Amino acid sequence: MVVNSLGREIPEVIRGKKVKPFQGVTRKYAQCKVIDFSKDTNCSKVLESLEEALKKVGLQNGMTVSFHHHLRNGDYVVNLVMKTIAAMGFKDINVAASAIFPVHAPLVDYIKEGVITGLEVNYMSGPVAQAVSDGILKKLAIFRSHGGRPRAIESGDLSIDIAFIAASAADRYGNATGILGPSRFGALGYAIPDALQARKVIIITDYLVDYPLAPISISQNYVDYVVKIDIIGDPKGIEFGSTKITQDPIRLKIAQQAAQVIQASGLLRDDLSFQTGAGSTSLAVAHYLYQLMKEDKIQGSFGGGGITQFFVKMLEEGFFKVLLDTQTFDLVGVESLARNPNHLEVDASFYANPHNKGCWVDQLDVIILGATEIDEDFNVNVITGSDGLIRGGSGGHSDTAAGAKLAIVVSPLAIVKKGIPIIRKEVTTITTPGKTIDVLVTEEGIAVNPRRKDIISFLERTKLPLKSIQDLRKEAEAQVGGSPKRVKVGKKIVGVVEYRDGTVIDVIRQREET
Amino acid sequence: MVVNSLGREIPEVIRGKKVKPFQGVTRKYAQCKVIDFSKDTNCSKVLESLEEALKKVGLQNGMTVSFHHHLRNGDYVVNLVMKTIAAMGFKDINVAASAIFPVHAPLVDYIKEGVITGLEVNYMSGPVAQAVSDGILKKLAIFRSHGGRPRAIESGDLSIDIAFIAASAADRYGNATGILGPSRFGALGYAIPDALQARKVIIITDYLVDYPLAPISISQNYVDYVVKIDIIGDPKGIEFGSTKITQDPIRLKIAQQAAQVIQASGLLRDDLSFQTGAGSTSLAVAHYLYQLMKEDKIQGSFGGGGITQFFVKMLEEGFFKVLLDTQTFDLVGVESLARNPNHLEVDASFYANPHNKGCWVDQLDVIILGATEIDEDFNVNVITGSDGLIRGGSGGHSDTAAGAKLAIVVSPLAIVKKGIPIIRKEVTTITTPGKTIDVLVTEEGIAVNPRRKDIISFLERTKLPLKSIQDLRKEAEAQVGGSPKRVKVGKKIVGVVEYRDGTVIDVIRQREET
Repeated sequence: MVVNSLGREIPEVIRGKKVKPFQGVTRKYAQCKVIDFSKDTNCSKVLESLEEALKKVGLQNGMTVSFHHHLRNGDYVVNLVMKTIAAMGFKDINVAASAIFPVHAPLVDYIKEGVITGLEVNYMSGPVAQAVSDGILKKLAIFRSHGGRPRAIESGDLSIDIAFIAASAADRYGNATGILGPSRFGALGYAIPDALQARKVIIITDYLVDYPLAPISISQNYVDYVVKIDIIGDPKGIEFGSTKITQDPIRLKIAQQAAQVIQASGLLRDDLSFQTGAGSTSLAVAHYLYQLMKEDKIQGSFGGGGITQFFVKMLEEGFFKVLLDTQTFDLVGVESLARNPNHLEVDASFYANPHNKGCWVDQLDVIILGATEIDEDFNVNVITGSDGLIRGGSGGHSDTAAGAKLAIVVSPLAIVKKGIPIIRKEVTTITTPGKTIDVLVTEEGIAVNPRRKDIISFLERTKLPLKSIQDLRKEAEAQVGGSPKRVKVGKKIVGVVEYRDGTVIDVIRQREET
Repeated sequence: MVVNSLGREIPEVIRGKKVKPFQGVTRKYAQCKVIDFSKDTNCSKVLESLEEALKKVGLQNGMTVSFHHHLRNGDYVVNLVMKTIAAMGFKDINVAASAIFPVHAPLVDYIKEGVITGLEVNYMSGPVAQAVSDGILKKLAIFRSHGGRPRAIESGDLSIDIAFIAASAADRYGNATGILGPSRFGALGYAIPDALQARKVIIITDYLVDYPLAPISISQNYVDYVVKIDIIGDPKGIEFGSTKITQDPIRLKIAQQAAQVIQASGLLRDDLSFQTGAGSTSLAVAHYLYQLMKEDKIQGSFGGGGITQFFVKMLEEGFFKVLLDTQTFDLVGVESLARNPNHLEVDASFYANPHNKGCWVDQLDVIILGATEIDEDFNVNVITGSDGLIRGGSGGHSDTAAGAKLAIVVSPLAIVKKGIPIIRKEVTTITTPGKTIDVLVTEEGIAVNPRRKDIISFLERTKLPLKSIQDLRKEAEAQVGGSPKRVKVGKKIVGVVEYRDGTVIDVIRQREET
């Protein structure tokens, strides 16, 4: 027996484990017993500057820092943090940003200077992507999917030292959200795995509210420090890229036929769940599907993914019961998330991590996807242009294709003006394995993956123009006057494409100077 | 270089790690590509029976299973699961239930039969508590606080093999909540650490809803299986124990003076945060404080803890901005949690875990606590009665005392009818170290912990009757006609009391037969 600091006799071993006797109340909460009860003496994690935060968390050369992309092309935080890191003289930093946009152009200089030597992203476009394509990054860039990233974080494949999380509102103890404040941008779904797993977590906000914040997207118990800056970004930037329905008659025809494919497949029934990207053709499919649901008085189950005002309208009119939102694509979506209890913020692991106990893509009926290129085995490229330049990334492409009952790629055969066929014998980079793509809808016909005999038999009962993908490939080449030359690339590998399960599905080689 | 299953040449090593080449889409989501698109073919975790679930998760002798106590004395799930485990012939099970109530009396037989050999709880009352006091449990019972339990779970001190989580609503993929359905009981705060950390998680519900449930308290990505049973419990049981304001004039006087202590201390100002247990005297303090806030037009910050209709009223009338709810103590609270966006469900780690990055008790201004016994060093016992019988547990007692700026114990000097002084030289069991208790308010005077010179100086400016705790102890003894005999206990230790940080603060010895 031993005696603890209160004089109590206790055993030395309990249930086979050595006992730690009570030794008094010594932890930090003791210092919260303050003499002066004024408001300012509450325990606070708010620091004066980013520099102070970087010192407190112990940033060192060679570490991995992470960022989320919810502010998309309106984000100011990545540049500001990296500027501070560079100014403090750090080198060899691995940047795990869920996505990089044109606004992040200043990172190119930090790459050149050796401040940044690694990038791990789900999507990359603009000057940084061009620079990586040109081979200036020291380490291989790693491309993951929206589900592959939380898988990598949870498994330790992506080990984050310091997560920097932009929040549009936060309190002194680190509770944070994206739906309140002047820079509100919506869901924080991609930042949540970082918050849960990173060794140190710093919230960066321009709107500090009294404790406790309500509602809370990221909880105080995961947050080390809070830094208030002037402005985290321009929320208008979340509408970056196309978030409007296409007006192009060819694309509208494709979209209408895609909706008819869904109808013919039998999935247009109560409990339909549905996801599209924010591309203009995908949104047009949603529009036609909405009309079909209206005609047939269908009540859908959930709409998921990047949420636009069109999905908000479908929720509010009762065509969806619930929206599952990992990132919000416009300000109407932000308002809805803040207000509507059936518009749920969920994290990236809930969305698409293939190695957790169940992600929503497994419950998805229909996904509408785009393609930069697609080959005769239905393998899709959405990472590199046909010129070899990095212009995107999987995002949720390969995740939703793997999970959905019906994965439809909508695309014209070719970009005729540029002489680029989209259907081709071989794609520049494989993002999504063809085994998970079910149907390709083009303006000249619909090709069904031969594996999906069920869908073929459904569509054969309709007047929809079924063709083989080989025939569509030939028509694509005819449109542009012959088969495309493969892009000239060097031997040097600049990027590696991980499939959602962490295996390597392809590499990206250095683009030759053009 | 190696070639992956899509024919792409990839390096064997990337960034120093051996590469896993893509080998095809082989995981379970492939089986979700179903031929028949009817509704029933969605991926589902719903099993036919508890027995099937126990087989699937691989329960074995010697394992630890966990339960939450949100249904309190109305819970049917602990008994049902343990009955199934016993019927299947398992032995030597360690039961980590956040609390055990009189309704769990059937466990006594499973303890006698060796089905249950260990208990780890934050609170225990009724026949199981009595049986443990009498020494029938094979292993030492471990008592933790509401914050100590998530600390132990997160650190691995309490390693849960299978968490059984009663939910009043769930969907086929395991999303779960306590605020919808016929058996709705409110927050699921104590179950969330179990869901996040247990190796296997089984949701048990009597109300299965279409996917996806909204809102979600426990997410699908943490859940292995869902079992639907007839009824999970009687939600009226959540009002177990006293949840009404006392009518006893002595206790009302104590409560009124406790409110005056808060006022005198300077904490009665905008941004006041405040927590009470559900005891009748504590609720009376809340009532008087509410009146003082009304008079002074104070807008408080948050009210926390087990949420009763009185706190809901304070929220709705604007005296609190936010309610932080780990467990809901009445049905008015349940309705409020379901409806009011400023009534937040938070988990036990957010509440009180001393080893995470920040729990709310550190932000708390005032906590009002009860005591079964209190000694001259302000050490408090809320676990055992003065007869040595286990009758309770810390719950959040030691957590809130450690975190709050002002921790007040309200208690009469003695239970005169039973001849039991509450203030005594030595308490039967130490739950909460006196260093974290600031003020004792009794009907005969107010004792301030000598450590809190600041409070003494505040109170000396008032007419409040300050006394030393030694004098109050003497008055208590005078009330009952002399100093109490210490309870007769055997040498055998039956339980161990962990402080919130995992150190052992006391033990509980076997009660001698009376």
